[in-house]
Amino acid sequence: MHDLTLADGRRLSPWCWAAKLALAHKDVAFETIPTRFIDIPKIEGGFKTVPVVDLGEATVGDSFELALKLETDYPDRPPLFAGEGGVALSRFVQAQASFLLGKMSRAMVLAIHDGLDEETQGYFRTSREKMFKATLEEVAAEPEKNIAAVKDALTPIRILLRSQPFLGGETPLFADLMVAGLFQWARVVGAVDYLAGEDRLAEWFARLEARYGETLARTNG
Amino acid sequence: MHDLTLADGRRLSPWCWAAKLALAHKDVAFETIPTRFIDIPKIEGGFKTVPVVDLGEATVGDSFELALKLETDYPDRPPLFAGEGGVALSRFVQAQASFLLGKMSRAMVLAIHDGLDEETQGYFRTSREKMFKATLEEVAAEPEKNIAAVKDALTPIRILLRSQPFLGGETPLFADLMVAGLFQWARVVGAVDYLAGEDRLAEWFARLEARYGETLARTNG
Repeated sequence: MHDLTLADGRRLSPWCWAAKLALAHKDVAFETIPTRFIDIPKIEGGFKTVPVVDLGEATVGDSFELALKLETDYPDRPPLFAGEGGVALSRFVQAQASFLLGKMSRAMVLAIHDGLDEETQGYFRTSREKMFKATLEEVAAEPEKNIAAVKDALTPIRILLRSQPFLGGETPLFADLMVAGLFQWARVVGAVDYLAGEDRLAEWFARLEARYGETLARTNG
Repeated sequence: MHDLTLADGRRLSPWCWAAKLALAHKDVAFETIPTRFIDIPKIEGGFKTVPVVDLGEATVGDSFELALKLETDYPDRPPLFAGEGGVALSRFVQAQASFLLGKMSRAMVLAIHDGLDEETQGYFRTSREKMFKATLEEVAAEPEKNIAAVKDALTPIRILLRSQPFLGGETPLFADLMVAGLFQWARVVGAVDYLAGEDRLAEWFARLEARYGETLARTNG
């Protein structure tokens, strides 16, 4: 699996983390290839984002597609979606995770930039400044305001975890793994502790660590 | 079904709308009893919120519980959850709907108050001011800011509807009906048009109207 990396080997992307957690969930062993942003176009197959996962008979370039494929290939192992409704509504959780990613990244963007090698920094700055329509320094300004916006956007998850231990109910589903990928990404970057003061979310993440601890500990692959 | 009402008979509650849409989805005919906020404690069974739905052999006091019961009782009719994963992740959509309800209500709270009879207004003002820890006038101040917060919180739904026609995928599930209840509530109150400028959401709502038009048109029961 091509896995996004910082200059020092720390694995970066929330979607790559979701993919690795999905592989662990289905008990599928995997190896990772550290991949910088600027290495992605060199991956065979014309992929524009990572994860890119070579499964032997097929190569999958998206964590959600990987999870769907794993669900089909390993129907007797713990489910990632638990039915058609689970697939459709996991797309909603994916949209929610994308939304959170945008908000979480603001207070992290300079730390991510600083963790990249010089060549990748140039690409990162140009592409992100275009995306945000602002300089990285402007995006990162007012971190307290940005963190408060993240906390607000986490409210539905906080509400949900009052009534069930996982987004997936009694056991984690891929929905949990997408959101967990965000917190793992933030933890690896280390600029902001989004679980600080979030007892319910921290307990949920601890439950995931109890299950996927080995995978989550491999922060350098 | 006990159905929350304004003084002029217009049906108010987003959760009551979700319940009526769930009944329509399963093609179950129903009658409604207009119920004011202050009438809820008088309903037999000690319910604190509506909808309260008398199904003959059982009375259900929550729209989600109703949807679960309908799914069990009518397994051969169109699904509301489509499996266990669908149930668990519908709880996430429910949490998201609660979150949106809080944000949407701010710019609507005075219009709701003004639509109630005098006796109910007193209850509404006291209970809501306690909930918001502010006067209704303070809650309703800065409507543009409140509406912008709603628009921001709708982002994940907007993202999702890029890739599928309903939250439930190719067909609506109870997830759609909970969110639709919010927009129907706003439409009945009439203070804010949250679908204005929301092409993708407006198209989604139009698809729901095509299917549940008769139910949605019964704004006075």
